[in-house]
Amino acid sequence: MLDTSAGFAAQALAATADLTTPVAVVEETVLERNLARMATLARDSGLKLRPHAKTHKSPFIARRQLEHGAVGLTAATLHEAEVFADAGAGDIFIAHPPVGAAKRRRLAELAGRGLRLAVAMDDAELARDLPAGVEVMWEVDTGLHRVGTAPGEATARAVAGLPEGRLRGLFTHAGQSYAVERALAARQEWEGLAESAARLRADGIEVGELSVGSSPTAAWAAEAAAGGITEMRPGTYVFGDANQVALGAQQLEDCALGVVATVVATPERERRVLDCGTKSISADSRVQALAGWGFVLGHPDLRIERLNEEHAVVLGEADLKVGDRVVVIPSHACTSANLHPALLFVGAGEPRWEPVVARGWN
Amino acid sequence: MLDTSAGFAAQALAATADLTTPVAVVEETVLERNLARMATLARDSGLKLRPHAKTHKSPFIARRQLEHGAVGLTAATLHEAEVFADAGAGDIFIAHPPVGAAKRRRLAELAGRGLRLAVAMDDAELARDLPAGVEVMWEVDTGLHRVGTAPGEATARAVAGLPEGRLRGLFTHAGQSYAVERALAARQEWEGLAESAARLRADGIEVGELSVGSSPTAAWAAEAAAGGITEMRPGTYVFGDANQVALGAQQLEDCALGVVATVVATPERERRVLDCGTKSISADSRVQALAGWGFVLGHPDLRIERLNEEHAVVLGEADLKVGDRVVVIPSHACTSANLHPALLFVGAGEPRWEPVVARGWN
Repeated sequence: MLDTSAGFAAQALAATADLTTPVAVVEETVLERNLARMATLARDSGLKLRPHAKTHKSPFIARRQLEHGAVGLTAATLHEAEVFADAGAGDIFIAHPPVGAAKRRRLAELAGRGLRLAVAMDDAELARDLPAGVEVMWEVDTGLHRVGTAPGEATARAVAGLPEGRLRGLFTHAGQSYAVERALAARQEWEGLAESAARLRADGIEVGELSVGSSPTAAWAAEAAAGGITEMRPGTYVFGDANQVALGAQQLEDCALGVVATVVATPERERRVLDCGTKSISADSRVQALAGWGFVLGHPDLRIERLNEEHAVVLGEADLKVGDRVVVIPSHACTSANLHPALLFVGAGEPRWEPVVARGWN
Repeated sequence: MLDTSAGFAAQALAATADLTTPVAVVEETVLERNLARMATLARDSGLKLRPHAKTHKSPFIARRQLEHGAVGLTAATLHEAEVFADAGAGDIFIAHPPVGAAKRRRLAELAGRGLRLAVAMDDAELARDLPAGVEVMWEVDTGLHRVGTAPGEATARAVAGLPEGRLRGLFTHAGQSYAVERALAARQEWEGLAESAARLRADGIEVGELSVGSSPTAAWAAEAAAGGITEMRPGTYVFGDANQVALGAQQLEDCALGVVATVVATPERERRVLDCGTKSISADSRVQALAGWGFVLGHPDLRIERLNEEHAVVLGEADLKVGDRVVVIPSHACTSANLHPALLFVGAGEPRWEPVVARGWN
């Protein structure tokens, strides 16, 4: 256990002593360090930083990201984009294809507010009735096999169908970085975009932005820049989580989001039950073999064996009795923060609540 | 595909045509049938019904459960208990040990409102400073190995430490019914409680209620009653979900909660991407080998291969193109409903929103 994590645990426990658990707590000095570090990495690498705000859904954190030099934000949903526009963001990329008349209406309303807006797309048909002024970031599939056209020829052919003047650039998300070697995923991102851009430019098509993004591949920002990439969109780095630690992308001391939980039962000497579960730390473990359902701060030998909605079964030896409290670092920060109406900020001045405004609606 | 599911899908798609997706929809006639069926099963078996309201967190559904003859409600958190007390419930069992001063304060406030209240406990120490009038339901571990004392002697010894007049009865939750044969789990529930009650009664200790509960074991209500059980606490049955269908506890036509999603990409002929994910249908699949991440109504050959926060990758052949909409039955209804501020009720009169009031806070 590093000193800073112990500090987080102590601060979190002190600030929540009078509250019922589970409570989601953010250590603001760690958060700030994460924000500053990523901003510096982007700047030093010559990349624009457009953080993915789906991780926190918090206007406060979004503003801090912009104050740290982010050129704009990435959003996953129209609701997030609307909330962050309300909070003052003037440049938002919605990294999801806006399909259907209802989404187009809301997109048009948002565009009417004078923001700089782009949306994800991997199908030129979808661009036909885009609201005026909304640009396209074309999605290239560099290994995740979710949305996107294959790099190179397939992308060039598909992009050719876009109405003139719509294309801002190409983007990809190396979500495979949760399953394969991070260095490989990072290389797949920048090579896939660079190859596609070269092919398009050879056809005389202007490609402005080349945008990569995932917290696990962020460390390769300089290599990405050298490969022609212009922008990065990490999300999870603001909070860190057990997944990032398991992947080696962040250290335990970088984890800024924890859930304070109480030991409510000790049915066996090495089995304890906490009052947190899938409704406070989420069941979404992307690298479960390594990160399990999360880590218990200060208790590296404890393992969260399973989660139910309001229970975590923790195995292992520890000096913890009924009534004691611990701080759990969730496996996945993004889906965990989404479960809480507000996060309790500690570590910088008086504890205060920051609402997770963009949660719930789409 | 059964007719009623097709009916649900059609109603859900019609009611949400002008809305952005994902949207959580409840088919109210199916919900009502589930409520009536469980109420009848309990009545015919001679068991009191105390449904677990954590599944829906909805005052409307809680009232319907009471109107169908439930003796009271089960809650998982103090917040749920407070919300349902506000909604008029006069008899609530909080199936979680209320550990710590903050929970005790809120419990005392709740007790002060004149409700009939009981709380879970597996440690007599915890009962020492319980607010006046709050009874104890002692938790027996009949196979889940979460909270609770072992049936029989261990339970009798531990319960003996309770202050006189506190014990209402014994309860258990056969959560193992998601992993072992349901009939076995059901038998473990009633036999474990009956054995413990016999042991306590032999010591002259009065044991009023014997309460079992899980939707997968509910079908054995009559056998449980014959074994001395007095009460049942199923939760998920109100909505059903892919887990219940996979276990054989409910049929697909009994699923009353679905999430309407839009096809946003078809990168390959047999790979489609929907705009629902772990922030709208939850990553909590308890019987994943069978239920996967959920079912796509009307498309039994489609398989949800993986979920990200706002994406579901669906594999298989189907006549579905970008812009088409489908209804997804989540793997786990309880954690899915919890992700939505409100559920759109369809199938009985004009569509209307019912808020998921008890979500978010603990």
